[in-house]
Amino acid sequence: MSEWSCYTGSAPQQLGVVWEVLWHLSSYRTNFQILVRTRELNWRPSSSQSKSLQTEPPPKKVCVLLVLFNEKISGAEGTKLDEDFMEMERKIEVTNKSVFDLLSKTTEYLQPNPASRAKLNMLNTVSKIRGQVKTTGYPQTEGLLGDCMLRYGHELGQESVFGGSLVDMGEAMRQMADVKDSLDINVKQNFIDPLQHLQDKDLKEITHHLKKLEGRRLDFDYKKKRQGKIPDEEIQQAVEKFEESKELAERSMFNFLENDVEQVSQLSALIEAAVDYHRQSCEILEELSGKLHKRMSTASCRPKREFKSKSIRSRIETLDNSQHNGLSYSSSLKSTGTAAISLSVCWLKLHCLL
Amino acid sequence: MSEWSCYTGSAPQQLGVVWEVLWHLSSYRTNFQILVRTRELNWRPSSSQSKSLQTEPPPKKVCVLLVLFNEKISGAEGTKLDEDFMEMERKIEVTNKSVFDLLSKTTEYLQPNPASRAKLNMLNTVSKIRGQVKTTGYPQTEGLLGDCMLRYGHELGQESVFGGSLVDMGEAMRQMADVKDSLDINVKQNFIDPLQHLQDKDLKEITHHLKKLEGRRLDFDYKKKRQGKIPDEEIQQAVEKFEESKELAERSMFNFLENDVEQVSQLSALIEAAVDYHRQSCEILEELSGKLHKRMSTASCRPKREFKSKSIRSRIETLDNSQHNGLSYSSSLKSTGTAAISLSVCWLKLHCLL
Repeated sequence: MSEWSCYTGSAPQQLGVVWEVLWHLSSYRTNFQILVRTRELNWRPSSSQSKSLQTEPPPKKVCVLLVLFNEKISGAEGTKLDEDFMEMERKIEVTNKSVFDLLSKTTEYLQPNPASRAKLNMLNTVSKIRGQVKTTGYPQTEGLLGDCMLRYGHELGQESVFGGSLVDMGEAMRQMADVKDSLDINVKQNFIDPLQHLQDKDLKEITHHLKKLEGRRLDFDYKKKRQGKIPDEEIQQAVEKFEESKELAERSMFNFLENDVEQVSQLSALIEAAVDYHRQSCEILEELSGKLHKRMSTASCRPKREFKSKSIRSRIETLDNSQHNGLSYSSSLKSTGTAAISLSVCWLKLHCLL
Repeated sequence: MSEWSCYTGSAPQQLGVVWEVLWHLSSYRTNFQILVRTRELNWRPSSSQSKSLQTEPPPKKVCVLLVLFNEKISGAEGTKLDEDFMEMERKIEVTNKSVFDLLSKTTEYLQPNPASRAKLNMLNTVSKIRGQVKTTGYPQTEGLLGDCMLRYGHELGQESVFGGSLVDMGEAMRQMADVKDSLDINVKQNFIDPLQHLQDKDLKEITHHLKKLEGRRLDFDYKKKRQGKIPDEEIQQAVEKFEESKELAERSMFNFLENDVEQVSQLSALIEAAVDYHRQSCEILEELSGKLHKRMSTASCRPKREFKSKSIRSRIETLDNSQHNGLSYSSSLKSTGTAAISLSVCWLKLHCLL
């Protein structure tokens, strides 16, 4: 068995299979990129290559892939890094996931209605495309409740205790909606945006270093296996590159984790925003509560009105006398013709509607 | 033209049309019931009736309908009630609508996610069918955010400042979710349920009285138009019934509107529940804020750790010496057979998955 074919069992004809399997086996994004590269390479042994497969090694990138495949499938171990490094790597992975989840869960916390979130996203995208800077906020349920209260309150009128109270409460609910808007803006600026920046810059950079390190590790492992068959300088070079990459990745992880108080200050910003929101809401509601209690006590002090029903008979008689008996009915008699026309019009409209 | 045909123009052959038009024209629920009654009556003139149409009046219920139709189409005015009554009727209608809207908008305020609302409704229906008394609450976004924080906090570990802070905050968010649960239960018991009761009992009763009154008014108007052709006692009876119904409806509306402070106390209950919620949330968050600031100040006082990278070369050499050169690789050589088997197994699994 040739030296390199040991990595794949039955040689690279199975590469198509290999990348499919890797795709499903791999849990790391790193692998995905490698897989994509395999596709880009589109490496197929030519007939001459097929013959020389037993003697010549395949291209370097494919070798790296085969080392990885061997590790994944047969459980062969590559060069392992020290435990401190691995622990840092784990923490970075957890932080990465946590930031991703915190971003989505905080957005849900601010606006639990997915339809509203989707609509706002769309609106903001549209305004971005149109070059409008101002972005719209979420529709607040407090505001919707407040609008409905104001509408009915005004319809009932201020002389009604319930109507007046609805107006008071509607106005307070609108204020609450404004306070909620401030919370949204505050959290977006002081929590979501910094966290997004962390994800897009710091964490992305670290992930990049780790990916590069993994590539150099695989290259080193491949060369190390061929010790004695390739010049020692090549192995030496691979070690140096590996070492260099390791230090870079380690330093970036160390710095990030050492400054994790930064993320705590972002959590703190989220809390401060929420405290402000709840405190202001509380103040608005307490003031409103006072108003309503005043309205209620005024209403209870008010002298009770007596129920007096106006007689229909007297009303009918008055009307009859003023209109002369039957006059109003003769008018409806006259309008019968019009009624028939109205009927046909309605009928036509109905057909248009249905 | 006979006396009664004036109400329809071309006589009751058009009754099918009449009820269709009424259905679309009418904006009041009352009319719907009358329309349904028309269908129940299914009144069609028989051939003998067709001949006698010019001389005999149609059944009483149909007459009432025709009066209504005449009023709707030709704008003929029936007996109008006094303005105080009409104002009360308007207020009752506004109250009716406001209660309906307040119920739905408050539910949206408590849980803006329609999917969660639908799910909860379904769950509660299922538990009712199964005879389980306990009802489930809404999933709170605070709780979901808290759970996510707790999970990642524990994964990062307490020695990490960010990890510890996430655990602190996760616990606080869970408490916030409990406070939100209390708000939901409180609002349900002290606002939604009483308002629902108001809608299902008091307002329904008033609507019933008003419907009955409308029926009696139509009956009276019909009889009044036939004055001189029917015994005066019949008209007298119709007036009495009309009067009786009017007083009943008026009294029920008067009592309801006079006690509208009742609805204000329900609004007040909603406010108190919201105040409690915001106050408690505020307290939880303020305590949490203190904890995080303490963590941050401790972290900033902590002596800075120096970055020390462990050399790979020394590690590799140590490993190589302990394993004898190449031993670990010969094991991977041996496992090539197994790798081929693993590959086939994976492949099979893949096919099952896809």
